[in-house]
Amino acid sequence: MNAPAEPFLASAAQVDQAAIAPLPNSRKIYVQGSRPDVQVPMRAISQSDTPASFGAEANPPVFVYDCSGPYGDPAAAIDIRSGLPALRQRWIEERADTEVLSGLSSAFGRERAADQRLDALRFPGLQRQPRRARAGANVSQMHYARRGLITPEMEFVAIRENLNRQQYIDSLRRSGPKGQRMADMMLRQHPGQAFGASLPAEITPEFVRSEVARGRAIIPANINHPESEPMVIGRNFLVKINANIGNSALGSSISEEVDKMTWAIRWGGDTVMDLSTGKNIHETREWIVRNSPVPIGTVPIYQALEKVGGKAEELSWEIFRDTLIEQAEQGVDYFTIHAGVLLRYVPLTAERLTGIVSRGGSIMAKWCLAHHRESFLYTHFEDICDIMKAYDVAFSLGDGLRPGSIYDANDAAQLSELRTLGELTQVAWKHDVQVMIEGPGHVPMQLIKENMDLQLEQCAEAPFYTLGPLTTDIAPGYDHITSGIGAATIGWYGTAMLCYVTPKEHLGLPNKQDVKEGIITYKLAAHAADLAKGHPGAQIRDNALSKARFEFRWADQFNLGLDPDKAREFHDETLPKDSAKVAHFCSMCGPHFCSMKITQEVRDYAAAQGVTEGQALEHGLQQQSQAFRQAGGEVYIPLQRVD
Amino acid sequence: MNAPAEPFLASAAQVDQAAIAPLPNSRKIYVQGSRPDVQVPMRAISQSDTPASFGAEANPPVFVYDCSGPYGDPAAAIDIRSGLPALRQRWIEERADTEVLSGLSSAFGRERAADQRLDALRFPGLQRQPRRARAGANVSQMHYARRGLITPEMEFVAIRENLNRQQYIDSLRRSGPKGQRMADMMLRQHPGQAFGASLPAEITPEFVRSEVARGRAIIPANINHPESEPMVIGRNFLVKINANIGNSALGSSISEEVDKMTWAIRWGGDTVMDLSTGKNIHETREWIVRNSPVPIGTVPIYQALEKVGGKAEELSWEIFRDTLIEQAEQGVDYFTIHAGVLLRYVPLTAERLTGIVSRGGSIMAKWCLAHHRESFLYTHFEDICDIMKAYDVAFSLGDGLRPGSIYDANDAAQLSELRTLGELTQVAWKHDVQVMIEGPGHVPMQLIKENMDLQLEQCAEAPFYTLGPLTTDIAPGYDHITSGIGAATIGWYGTAMLCYVTPKEHLGLPNKQDVKEGIITYKLAAHAADLAKGHPGAQIRDNALSKARFEFRWADQFNLGLDPDKAREFHDETLPKDSAKVAHFCSMCGPHFCSMKITQEVRDYAAAQGVTEGQALEHGLQQQSQAFRQAGGEVYIPLQRVD
Repeated sequence: MNAPAEPFLASAAQVDQAAIAPLPNSRKIYVQGSRPDVQVPMRAISQSDTPASFGAEANPPVFVYDCSGPYGDPAAAIDIRSGLPALRQRWIEERADTEVLSGLSSAFGRERAADQRLDALRFPGLQRQPRRARAGANVSQMHYARRGLITPEMEFVAIRENLNRQQYIDSLRRSGPKGQRMADMMLRQHPGQAFGASLPAEITPEFVRSEVARGRAIIPANINHPESEPMVIGRNFLVKINANIGNSALGSSISEEVDKMTWAIRWGGDTVMDLSTGKNIHETREWIVRNSPVPIGTVPIYQALEKVGGKAEELSWEIFRDTLIEQAEQGVDYFTIHAGVLLRYVPLTAERLTGIVSRGGSIMAKWCLAHHRESFLYTHFEDICDIMKAYDVAFSLGDGLRPGSIYDANDAAQLSELRTLGELTQVAWKHDVQVMIEGPGHVPMQLIKENMDLQLEQCAEAPFYTLGPLTTDIAPGYDHITSGIGAATIGWYGTAMLCYVTPKEHLGLPNKQDVKEGIITYKLAAHAADLAKGHPGAQIRDNALSKARFEFRWADQFNLGLDPDKAREFHDETLPKDSAKVAHFCSMCGPHFCSMKITQEVRDYAAAQGVTEGQALEHGLQQQSQAFRQAGGEVYIPLQRVD
Repeated sequence: MNAPAEPFLASAAQVDQAAIAPLPNSRKIYVQGSRPDVQVPMRAISQSDTPASFGAEANPPVFVYDCSGPYGDPAAAIDIRSGLPALRQRWIEERADTEVLSGLSSAFGRERAADQRLDALRFPGLQRQPRRARAGANVSQMHYARRGLITPEMEFVAIRENLNRQQYIDSLRRSGPKGQRMADMMLRQHPGQAFGASLPAEITPEFVRSEVARGRAIIPANINHPESEPMVIGRNFLVKINANIGNSALGSSISEEVDKMTWAIRWGGDTVMDLSTGKNIHETREWIVRNSPVPIGTVPIYQALEKVGGKAEELSWEIFRDTLIEQAEQGVDYFTIHAGVLLRYVPLTAERLTGIVSRGGSIMAKWCLAHHRESFLYTHFEDICDIMKAYDVAFSLGDGLRPGSIYDANDAAQLSELRTLGELTQVAWKHDVQVMIEGPGHVPMQLIKENMDLQLEQCAEAPFYTLGPLTTDIAPGYDHITSGIGAATIGWYGTAMLCYVTPKEHLGLPNKQDVKEGIITYKLAAHAADLAKGHPGAQIRDNALSKARFEFRWADQFNLGLDPDKAREFHDETLPKDSAKVAHFCSMCGPHFCSMKITQEVRDYAAAQGVTEGQALEHGLQQQSQAFRQAGGEVYIPLQRVD
């Protein structure tokens, strides 16, 4: 991180090689929808057969959600200087409600485009013409949904959420004489506790449409980002995660940020926010959007502030408006907008321990005080809606007054802003503009439920998108974990997307290793939440991995995990030989003392007595002592009744 | 880990230097109790003053719980070949209910002592004579408690749990003109949600006695481990964590295990379990106990199994009994005993996905099936109680049938065993023997509450001691985190001690780095649980750290955290210069764009208008617009009422 960055040369830019090798035993598959150009990507993880000593079963591939787009597909030609194919282009064109503009609408965008000094670092691919809704048209997915239209985007996400489950079940059933039993086993799942979420057994395109129409889910899909693979954010879908990237005045070049993006989606980032604040934000963003298969979010006020030399009080609606249009025409899919920071809320933060910690929030607070009136984000909110619906940019209504410490959690400033965000949600929905709501921050565990419940009530179930929350302040260097605890908890309660926190939070800028650590932590937190809610099929991957673990299929155990590389590396530290990967023991107990081996002997013992596994319970009971039989066949017998 | 271990030479053994340097800006203090030899250790973390721009306040030292014993105290002479001072020796002698034996009572112990081939690796310090209760006496802390006796051990833990809070408060009040305000601020804490726990504002020795008497807390304190600093495990005290160490047939030498112990307590392990299964278990244990200021737990069946060449069916009561006495006379403070694995429960595991994953559980299951009767742990349970009370060894009733996967969570095998553990608790309590109950394992979040509630009910609030639980199976390599989520949650619900999980879980043997990662994860999880329960004073450290963070006191922020070294290292990666440690900005935003700086400007702005911080809220409201005043002074105003 500290070495001076190499000068960035657009003409020599290359994809990060670490981000494109397929994951072990994985291949990309595409599930076709109702039309040939709806090709929904998933990752199929193939498995070896169960060893003979455990029953010689075939273990069909497990399908998992895949955010990595064409990266990692050996069939795809990757050149980040050209960008990704525009897979949604035809869908957008077919709707015939947009027009291609002859040039950029934003003054700043035109100025940058004309500046030849930027040529060396500019994205060198085809200079797209921006697209915008025709006059009077509304191109938001919400608008289509409310008119009853099921878009290809909606069908795409429906297929994506189902994870090819039916094919997996069919392949289990066909896997051999015990196929039906295998299918029953792999599909078994504990009932969830959903706190009011409605999780259908199968996601249909119509269900997606209805959720988007009522605002309970969003599909961030700017018409200027046709390269993106549609995904959905809502409490009745799989919990998603966001990864933040972005340079600051102190570090990071364009190529590092593109690398972080491809790296983030390899490990499961569902969306990526570009939070750059340094130089060349505009050019960096173009590189990222053109190469990103996931929706990109930004905080436009950061760039607007750069344009006024960092002086918050000099910000104006005109500068902000030009920035929104600049970024909308580049293809940013959602904007964080801190329109809930009202003048009268600012003094509520004076008694806080850590004041206002949101950058956007503090900028707007300063502006409000300097001008002694409500911010242009609030007074021009409907004007912003008009821009959003012309490109289908979704709102991420920012929590500028989120708590920056346990001390400040759920205070009047935070909760007042939340109510205003709920009202702004209704305004946006009046315009058929998609909305999600940002949430904290730092919240001790016992206050998380209150925060979630207030959000659901006051924002009418618009998707909640939280940063953690961190459940304690005392572990700098481990805030991916302090916040992973809060993230899993609030995801269980109903949060739709979790914004990751890296180990560097509060301390420094994350490098690639930190980005990965943050992502994996949040993937597992999101998955723990899916299990807890009872998301249909969520337990399949756990079941498959645990079966592999029990059967000593080491490579399958690694490959079914979120990070096969690290799992293998850890195993190699103690047992480096390849032969250990098929050994029926592990390093924790050694070859002569293995609980799983003993368990198998228990099963064999039962089988030797003529007990099929299906009858084992009953048989076991029959084999018990006279005292047990006298007790009437209860499994549990009070101690005093046993001799 | 893979380099061949150096031959271990007892005469050259040295303390791990990394474990004894004081933590930065920390010094050990001792709070004296009612007698001069009750000296309760804590760590005082000193802080710098608040910079002038933030108000130039003095920030008194913060006191934190310290498990590290004499290690890290520059005044202590550390030589692991001599062991630690026997601080409880006089208390034990004063009770006049024990006798010093002329030699070891265990046949195996005598055999090892006589084996000259072991001399080179034997602990070279004074060969202690073992101590045992006089005939007919019961030396357990529970026995004393039930007879109304407040032991020095009980007073010690009462002082320890209070964390010198009163002195901290007094020092805040004395810190300057704003002292009372500072005290109010630093002590402010959100109300907890305690799920039936009773958390007094101050822990008195009498409260400790009453909790121990009713079995709701234990003080593991073997009379043969007088070096240990008393600590308490119970739902109405701070949540504790355990770190496992131990070699296996595949790796680790004696010195590595002693290093891991000193390393584990440096970072906050409240107890350490020695789970060794390889050679020289007896000698390794002696080294560990003699040098450990924290209670040591073991699973005696592991060693018993070694004695019968790994053949579970050849285990017998006689061998097990000799092992218990051998370890009790070495000073082990608690024994995991899997007495709840009953014959009739074994078939309940045949339909599991991952069978029996507890090593102890699988050994006992195999024994039960081979002999077709209940195990000697169960049939001789009262004989075991007689041994426990002669040395004051606490039971950790093992969950031999704990689930090894999400699939198997909360199943009939696990819950049947739990009920039996509840019954065995009553038997142990009849003997005034201290008991805690071990718990899972792998449990999805929505089933954790059920597990905790059943344990509280069926085991009459005997302390619960859980391994995680892991909330998903899909992240091998990150199971400290999958389980840290479950640990924080179950700690909140009432678990008294959390057994850590390292990143190597399921994959390999943890090295020192893994031990630290596991410990810090569990310390933060335990602390998150303390905050959530509303443990009095728990938020002080969060408040102090957040105040340091807000005031850009970087070094204080690092030092108040659980891992000052890593926090500093992460900060240095982006801003390595020492001057950056006093800079009023950080690497996330850079010097010209800092939310905390802007927040301070907000406060200054308010102050410039004549608003003291104490009046800021009220004043802020008065300054608002006419529309707001008309609204009657509500902080929140519905959108339609604002012009």
